[in-house]
Amino acid sequence: MDLTFDLSSISTEALTAMHAELEQQHQRLVAANLKLDLTRGKPAPEQLDLSLPLLDLPGEGDYKAADGTDARNYGGLTGLPEVRQIWGEVFGVPAGQLIEGGNSSLALMHDALVNNVLFGVGDADSEPWRQIKFLCPVPGYDRHFTILEGLGIEMISVPLHEDGPDMAIVKELVAADPSIKGIWCIPKYSNPTGSVFSAEVIAELASMSTAAADFRIFWDNAYSVHHLTEEEVGVADILAACEEAGNPDRAYVFASTSKITTAGSGLSFFGSSAKNVAWYQKFMFRRTIGPDKINELRHVRFLPDAASVKALMSQHRAIIAPKFELVLSILDKHLGGTETATWTTPKGGYFISLEVPDGCAARVVGLAKEAGIALTPAGATFPYGRDPRDSNIRLAPTFPSLSELAQATEGLAVCVKLAAVEKALAAGAAS
Amino acid sequence: MDLTFDLSSISTEALTAMHAELEQQHQRLVAANLKLDLTRGKPAPEQLDLSLPLLDLPGEGDYKAADGTDARNYGGLTGLPEVRQIWGEVFGVPAGQLIEGGNSSLALMHDALVNNVLFGVGDADSEPWRQIKFLCPVPGYDRHFTILEGLGIEMISVPLHEDGPDMAIVKELVAADPSIKGIWCIPKYSNPTGSVFSAEVIAELASMSTAAADFRIFWDNAYSVHHLTEEEVGVADILAACEEAGNPDRAYVFASTSKITTAGSGLSFFGSSAKNVAWYQKFMFRRTIGPDKINELRHVRFLPDAASVKALMSQHRAIIAPKFELVLSILDKHLGGTETATWTTPKGGYFISLEVPDGCAARVVGLAKEAGIALTPAGATFPYGRDPRDSNIRLAPTFPSLSELAQATEGLAVCVKLAAVEKALAAGAAS
Repeated sequence: MDLTFDLSSISTEALTAMHAELEQQHQRLVAANLKLDLTRGKPAPEQLDLSLPLLDLPGEGDYKAADGTDARNYGGLTGLPEVRQIWGEVFGVPAGQLIEGGNSSLALMHDALVNNVLFGVGDADSEPWRQIKFLCPVPGYDRHFTILEGLGIEMISVPLHEDGPDMAIVKELVAADPSIKGIWCIPKYSNPTGSVFSAEVIAELASMSTAAADFRIFWDNAYSVHHLTEEEVGVADILAACEEAGNPDRAYVFASTSKITTAGSGLSFFGSSAKNVAWYQKFMFRRTIGPDKINELRHVRFLPDAASVKALMSQHRAIIAPKFELVLSILDKHLGGTETATWTTPKGGYFISLEVPDGCAARVVGLAKEAGIALTPAGATFPYGRDPRDSNIRLAPTFPSLSELAQATEGLAVCVKLAAVEKALAAGAAS
Repeated sequence: MDLTFDLSSISTEALTAMHAELEQQHQRLVAANLKLDLTRGKPAPEQLDLSLPLLDLPGEGDYKAADGTDARNYGGLTGLPEVRQIWGEVFGVPAGQLIEGGNSSLALMHDALVNNVLFGVGDADSEPWRQIKFLCPVPGYDRHFTILEGLGIEMISVPLHEDGPDMAIVKELVAADPSIKGIWCIPKYSNPTGSVFSAEVIAELASMSTAAADFRIFWDNAYSVHHLTEEEVGVADILAACEEAGNPDRAYVFASTSKITTAGSGLSFFGSSAKNVAWYQKFMFRRTIGPDKINELRHVRFLPDAASVKALMSQHRAIIAPKFELVLSILDKHLGGTETATWTTPKGGYFISLEVPDGCAARVVGLAKEAGIALTPAGATFPYGRDPRDSNIRLAPTFPSLSELAQATEGLAVCVKLAAVEKALAAGAAS
């Protein structure tokens, strides 16, 4: 179909013809027996190959840290000093306020929250977080919501704009309700919208009045160096902003190397005020003797400074930026300039957020599934897996090859159109 | 002093002379400015050298698991199948009932208990573990007690004998009090006593009537292959025993490679009934995308089967058994056959448990500290750090060199004698 796909002023007859043709196209897709996957934000094998040297590092005779510590033995709860220094520079956190804590930043977020639930935030007067609520900018990251749901924490959705959460709504809510204890934030290249928090939004988050004295910002800086353009977008320093605003303990910062080196065998980090870091350390001490210092040393040898991280990330960009461009160009070819779909054009991160007509997202995902194209379940980007408008679909272009991506996105466009035409026909029949 | 050290029928004059001589010996120790450490059960550098090949494994081109999984990417929550198979055989747990979960078995214990505290044990009618109690065989492992104390769980000490906990006391307590929800067990070469649970004790633990339907045995199998003698002591299979006794979900098994390969960069394991493994997995899913599969692969390449683990452990034994023999021989030379001190002669594990006269342990540790010999704080082997008799001292002979061990144990013997003589003099003065 090269004709412009415009359902705004189309006759029922034309709509019916279009439906028949789209159904045929969809049937051909189904018959093609595809096996394509746009679901998870996984690095491609070519990206993982960039870190192949890690697989034989640190090397047989190399196990001493800079201070002489034998990295093969127990101890060192907060991580090797050089690891904290290098990655503190990368993530913009003072080395002394950064802890390395294993292979999963999600686990650090989970554990911080569990500690809050069981014991509060560590102030003398702080109570365990029982029957509390959290603000969830949407669309957002399903695993954030899963942690909250597992702990029985009520989730309140707030709109996420290009420059961050809707601060008018956020400020009103947190000022009024002391049971709202926290907010999830992915400040840069947010999952899935690619939103980048503006300096104004960050200043407001840091300074806003909260009814809860123990309010915490869970700052998941998952994509801080994951640029897709020359621009290399920066965001304001949340810890400094909180400090300046007189709320030095408000933010917990999380980050990892999962999409920098290898996924699942990287390093992860917790950063905050010195007071919060001491608090977190107390719980880490109960849980473990220390992190995997050999893996820390491996990363130090491979990425000895912030400049080497930057160089590596530009190699990642060279691999994945063309994938994003391809998906965006195919979406544009089939759906550009129509009212049927809109999507984000991220400057970094791992996702494209696609908006289809209200009530169509689940249908699109279902049609795609029939055609062998796996999409993230509709609703996954919302608390409780429920997208109130049933319109958002998260696309993850990094893992598939370019040819697979082309096939999958072409097929996706057919499914979006078919679902939109079905809706238009149903609306016509109902009117 | 070559004379037999016997305070049982000694005159006050002789005691006073002995005291003067021991004080002189102690002063010479202090002047020697030693810096020796018998505190923690850490492997010696020579032991860590046995696993040097791990430092460049799996090797640059090697990242595929047996089933083709790219170990560099996300996923695989329960661990690679070959890891579960190999270590299932080592630890005597069916591969399908064993999860690999990172670098710290202590963390797995902690998390299991946190899950119990927050959500119960996973049965339809199970309640969160609030205001509960735990049985703690003593002397025991301080980090076990730290987890309980942190969670506000009341600890009840029960005596640990050579063949396991005092089961008459255990059975009476668990039958009577439904708030007693669990017991810590280190079934083989227990920390610090070297106790080995007998088949009878294990059968009783598995079958005993508990007032709490959700009673759990936390089975920390930390030293299962850590033999110090040819005997290679075995213990009964707790999961099978629980199954046979009609309590299939009673035991959580924990183990790690921390003292097999490298400490802090090894693998750790949770094993239990299929039902409990599914339960644990649910919480792991909330917390993480998966374990470090590259580290799993590294271990698979280095230790491809249970036989290779056995061979490695005999090399460990060759290094550390002489250290235990040295400490035991020096203790025997100075304190053997007296009533002043007794100690364990472990067939495996990492510790010797020393009993000094009641009320003397803290004094011995203090005297040793003055002499530059660091000992585990008196009381550490008891809940809340309080040894009611103040008599137990944990010795960790693995890390120091033989010459350091000789110096430290000679010095320790002086401190034990001096504390005992001080006590005898004080008793004489009081009578």
